Amino acid sequence: MIKVGIVGGTGYTGVELLRLLALHPQVALQAITSRADAGTPVSQMFPSLRGLVNLSFVHPDEAHLEQCDLVFFATPNGIAMQQARSLLDAGVRVIDLAADFRIQDIATWEKWYGMSHACPDLVAEAVYGLPEINREAIKSARLIANPGCYPTAVQLGFLPLLEAGVVETSSLIADAKSGVSGAGRKAEIPTLFAEAGDNFKAYGVAGHRHLPEIKQGLARVKGSEVGLTFVPHLTPLIRGIHATLYAKLTQEVDLQALFERRYAGEAFVDVMPAGSQPETRSVRGSNNCRIAVYRPQGGDTVVVLSVIDNLVKGAAGQAVQNMNIMFGFPENMALNIVPLLP
Amino acid sequence: MIKVGIVGGTGYTGVELLRLLALHPQVALQAITSRADAGTPVSQMFPSLRGLVNLSFVHPDEAHLEQCDLVFFATPNGIAMQQARSLLDAGVRVIDLAADFRIQDIATWEKWYGMSHACPDLVAEAVYGLPEINREAIKSARLIANPGCYPTAVQLGFLPLLEAGVVETSSLIADAKSGVSGAGRKAEIPTLFAEAGDNFKAYGVAGHRHLPEIKQGLARVKGSEVGLTFVPHLTPLIRGIHATLYAKLTQEVDLQALFERRYAGEAFVDVMPAGSQPETRSVRGSNNCRIAVYRPQGGDTVVVLSVIDNLVKGAAGQAVQNMNIMFGFPENMALNIVPLLP
Amino acid sequence: MIKVGIVGGTGYTGVELLRLLALHPQVALQAITSRADAGTPVSQMFPSLRGLVNLSFVHPDEAHLEQCDLVFFATPNGIAMQQARSLLDAGVRVIDLAADFRIQDIATWEKWYGMSHACPDLVAEAVYGLPEINREAIKSARLIANPGCYPTAVQLGFLPLLEAGVVETSSLIADAKSGVSGAGRKAEIPTLFAEAGDNFKAYGVAGHRHLPEIKQGLARVKGSEVGLTFVPHLTPLIRGIHATLYAKLTQEVDLQALFERRYAGEAFVDVMPAGSQPETRSVRGSNNCRIAVYRPQGGDTVVVLSVIDNLVKGAAGQAVQNMNIMFGFPENMALNIVPLLP
Amino acid sequence: MIKVGIVGGTGYTGVELLRLLALHPQVALQAITSRADAGTPVSQMFPSLRGLVNLSFVHPDEAHLEQCDLVFFATPNGIAMQQARSLLDAGVRVIDLAADFRIQDIATWEKWYGMSHACPDLVAEAVYGLPEINREAIKSARLIANPGCYPTAVQLGFLPLLEAGVVETSSLIADAKSGVSGAGRKAEIPTLFAEAGDNFKAYGVAGHRHLPEIKQGLARVKGSEVGLTFVPHLTPLIRGIHATLYAKLTQEVDLQALFERRYAGEAFVDVMPAGSQPETRSVRGSNNCRIAVYRPQGGDTVVVLSVIDNLVKGAAGQAVQNMNIMFGFPENMALNIVPLLP
Repeated sequence: MIKVGIVGGTGYTGVELLRLLALHPQVALQAITSRADAGTPVSQMFPSLRGLVNLSFVHPDEAHLEQCDLVFFATPNGIAMQQARSLLDAGVRVIDLAADFRIQDIATWEKWYGMSHACPDLVAEAVYGLPEINREAIKSARLIANPGCYPTAVQLGFLPLLEAGVVETSSLIADAKSGVSGAGRKAEIPTLFAEAGDNFKAYGVAGHRHLPEIKQGLARVKGSEVGLTFVPHLTPLIRGIHATLYAKLTQEVDLQALFERRYAGEAFVDVMPAGSQPETRSVRGSNNCRIAVYRPQGGDTVVVLSVIDNLVKGAAGQAVQNMNIMFGFPENMALNIVPLLP
Repeated sequence: MIKVGIVGGTGYTGVELLRLLALHPQVALQAITSRADAGTPVSQMFPSLRGLVNLSFVHPDEAHLEQCDLVFFATPNGIAMQQARSLLDAGVRVIDLAADFRIQDIATWEKWYGMSHACPDLVAEAVYGLPEINREAIKSARLIANPGCYPTAVQLGFLPLLEAGVVETSSLIADAKSGVSGAGRKAEIPTLFAEAGDNFKAYGVAGHRHLPEIKQGLARVKGSEVGLTFVPHLTPLIRGIHATLYAKLTQEVDLQALFERRYAGEAFVDVMPAGSQPETRSVRGSNNCRIAVYRPQGGDTVVVLSVIDNLVKGAAGQAVQNMNIMFGFPENMALNIVPLLP
Repeated sequence: MIKVGIVGGTGYTGVELLRLLALHPQVALQAITSRADAGTPVSQMFPSLRGLVNLSFVHPDEAHLEQCDLVFFATPNGIAMQQARSLLDAGVRVIDLAADFRIQDIATWEKWYGMSHACPDLVAEAVYGLPEINREAIKSARLIANPGCYPTAVQLGFLPLLEAGVVETSSLIADAKSGVSGAGRKAEIPTLFAEAGDNFKAYGVAGHRHLPEIKQGLARVKGSEVGLTFVPHLTPLIRGIHATLYAKLTQEVDLQALFERRYAGEAFVDVMPAGSQPETRSVRGSNNCRIAVYRPQGGDTVVVLSVIDNLVKGAAGQAVQNMNIMFGFPENMALNIVPLLP
Repeated sequence: MIKVGIVGGTGYTGVELLRLLALHPQVALQAITSRADAGTPVSQMFPSLRGLVNLSFVHPDEAHLEQCDLVFFATPNGIAMQQARSLLDAGVRVIDLAADFRIQDIATWEKWYGMSHACPDLVAEAVYGLPEINREAIKSARLIANPGCYPTAVQLGFLPLLEAGVVETSSLIADAKSGVSGAGRKAEIPTLFAEAGDNFKAYGVAGHRHLPEIKQGLARVKGSEVGLTFVPHLTPLIRGIHATLYAKLTQEVDLQALFERRYAGEAFVDVMPAGSQPETRSVRGSNNCRIAVYRPQGGDTVVVLSVIDNLVKGAAGQAVQNMNIMFGFPENMALNIVPLLP
């Protein structure tokens, strides 16, 4: 049994952490902080948690997070980097669901996120929490940079191709579609039901913050820079990311076998049978990534379809998976969830 | 560990049973039948179940259902009444999720369902599976008539008022709204996305099959006939029923206390604090019914709001709850689910 | 050709006015005001209007609205009452789409809207702009209080019953469901796609601002106070209101004939054939109200189904209809729109 | 005034033709055929047309289509090719909204559509009805092959690049997303609300019938074969296609100027300002195609975003546009529609 705190529990990644942790047999929830909503019972804001989470939101100053074994940051970008050091110094391990520790190159991070970084040395120490690549390092990490949602779906899809060195990496294309919960629980006009409903659009075409994160991840795998065009789109569903990936093959390869082999031991990556087309709802509420791989008309363009639930494998579920790895619990503890279909 | 079979596993109540039973620690799934899809792996039709359900659909003749301890019928109306007797004779207990055993008056059933009943004597034996009313009888029942979705939401909402005798029962009104999954997984034009999406309508205003079921249930509670106007509506959401109930008060009563007291011991009925307005998503994927009660402007009209997930508390979840009761398992075994929000 | 101004053009009623007026052959749009977005081309905020509306939003102080023949207020409550007098004094006619002039009893208005009224005398002069009741008064009105969306759907549904005096009026029930655009184009969490999508809930059960407006309208028809329980609900569609109305019959009457006769000459009220169930999408984008009337099981409860597009007949369309009446244009000019289905 | 008939009026392209033609000042609707629904008033099936279309569906044998000036086929593939010749022989002009006359290479057509072609000579005569390319030929055509929905969005997006010869054409990529109405008004499980709602998936990745149509169109422009990977997706909206197109630049070019120049004279193609991201709803219900062009991070990949309403510019609207051109009416007659937003 470990003591766990959550900083910033009123957003979608926060409530999703609560959904997953409420039934985790090895977790004792100690505190959930919120400046704006301190004193409000969690179950008043999220009636879905009535009878399951009996805590109230607490002001950060009164949360005694330093007494936890682990603290999740489900905060906007720029918060965790202010508070992580003191927690680490107190012996608390930290998983940041925001972007503060994801980009190793500080200048790049500062350019895309528009602020100065408060602790570059911790960035150097942080482990990028994509278990399918970094499982060993995660086990002993003090500080985890939990990957972004798009980066999770896109990297898992490209990974086998880049590891095997079978595609041109100068002009990769990732055409990604996200449900609206990816924008967070923030009062903004473009994500109103009457704006985002019955509507489809691209956004961030000129440049999106997940671009450098994906490029960094792919470059690590390949060992050198990659060229990537990344176009995210907003689609009228609540949860789900569908990444459609395009690359040019440079040699003959059995794509289906390559992908199945790569993910054979992975509990949360499901390579579907040849000819399948994964649906986002097939992972709704679960920590799975489902992947299918195609070579249309036998040409030299490989197409990978990769779906996740952006709030689970793309955020809170992956964070819990990282926690399980860090503390030696079975990796799927509290994550053995049947997707909600229909 | 009990052996369980499902007849008709390709509809929404079937796949929902599978979702719930896949992780039930006391259930061994023996067979799932389908005439049309015999031989197809369940997980091919429902990729959400990949790695969780390894059975294929099997033809009813080869299912050996008589070797099960319990068989669920997740079939269209009129099937269970043909097959229940031979299973019961073989010592198998039966839960019918369709309507075959719900209406005690055979003439009424035949009128509303448009067919002759195959086994009136079994109707007489069948126990109406609403645990909040019939828990004791369910324990020893051989044959359960699992309630309809609207009847569950409406009866649970009216129950405390009728038991306490505090409302006029000659002109009750139930204005109910259902998600589209309530219509089943059937190829029909009116429930296409492009028809039911971004649209709202009433249906069955002149008469809906759930009307006699609700009236029968309310009459049992009151001890005599009740007058009910029931108007169902189709609303563009996948899961969820919201019943808005109206009745005229005949005496002063503390409504909030009345409801809280009635459901104090019920794990799956949540009386919300005064002033709450339950959302369907607050029960999405779970077996809960959430209820709020109002007396607008202090007048003599009481308004009850009652929400359930039509596929869970309104169908498969209630069936599993009944199974748990019948076999002496904890009533919430495999039903301890956190609703999926957002 | 009349000169028309719009105050507050950045909300949904504003852009809907623009959609309807852009093609009106007798309207010259002079100015659309917005404090926050002055200088922004209208078609930049609403690309649907590219090539159709070439104005930019202008600051109210520079709009020269006093030179218009007619000014629409598509503003939050409390704005029109500050500015109407000076326009009227300048000879401009005014249609307020907000609630400032809807309630004749000032104390009632102040209670429900939480502010002091700036010009009670103008309230007394204002004409309630429901053409099906007030057509003659509208013709010569200087100042129109354009009805609310719920009040339009509910009053048109109850009207024939109350005029004919065939129902009990002490306990009318209006169970109404609205699409999310009814909440306006405001950055608020409850109307986010990820909150309001795939979800259904009641709101304002204890009391909603449209209650006194509806009661006032019904009382005018009946000649005395009525008792009304009004429960609004939020349903996941963009446009549309569906009101389900319940009343107790006090005498025998041919309901279908009553409704058809009442609305025989009305271009925008369509009494559907007996047995119909109007869908909200059947009026999407149009100024129609479609109505069906039922007497379920031949009992003494009459059920009326009434649907409108909340932004058209429930707001901007009715405002244009009022304008047409005021200026002697054909009542359906620029409103002869085929609903968008699917 | 021309006499117009519609064969197959019960699908989405049929009812959309009716929506557009109902208000066309130069069209007299003569007959709308349906074998299954002969005798049913059109407005009974589509209440949105009450008071606007007073015809009933008529059996094809009694439609006297040979007396029309123009007949639209809004039928499944394979019907128009059976009936077009006799109409043409009778002097009737024909617009086929299905695929029978779209592919010039008969073997290719037969392979993708799985049937023998009934009249290859008429295919040779048929004019591909994309006005932005073929306006002159359309004017005098007897027989129009109205383009598919995806082909319209994709070709209009790629056109300026291929005409200018500024991109590699061996590995074009079209990642396209369609609303569910594109699947037609057919009773099928995958397009049920509870299946397609809150869900996103690719389909037809191995090969889709619109692939050869798009390749044919692009090859005509370029003068030789092109290589194209086309991946369609189903997205939970009713109307709308969003095509995201990728190509590799082979020379420096001012993309914005190139696109603006190409479409300067086109009423229905709107090149948006640099930096824009067109939304599908910005064309909802209208005949517009809106396009934006990008060169992310100044690299050599050009990204084109192209949106249409699949039922309008992608089907019925383009058919009416073709009719207007054929009969010398203003090209935008009855198509001067403001998109419905929100």
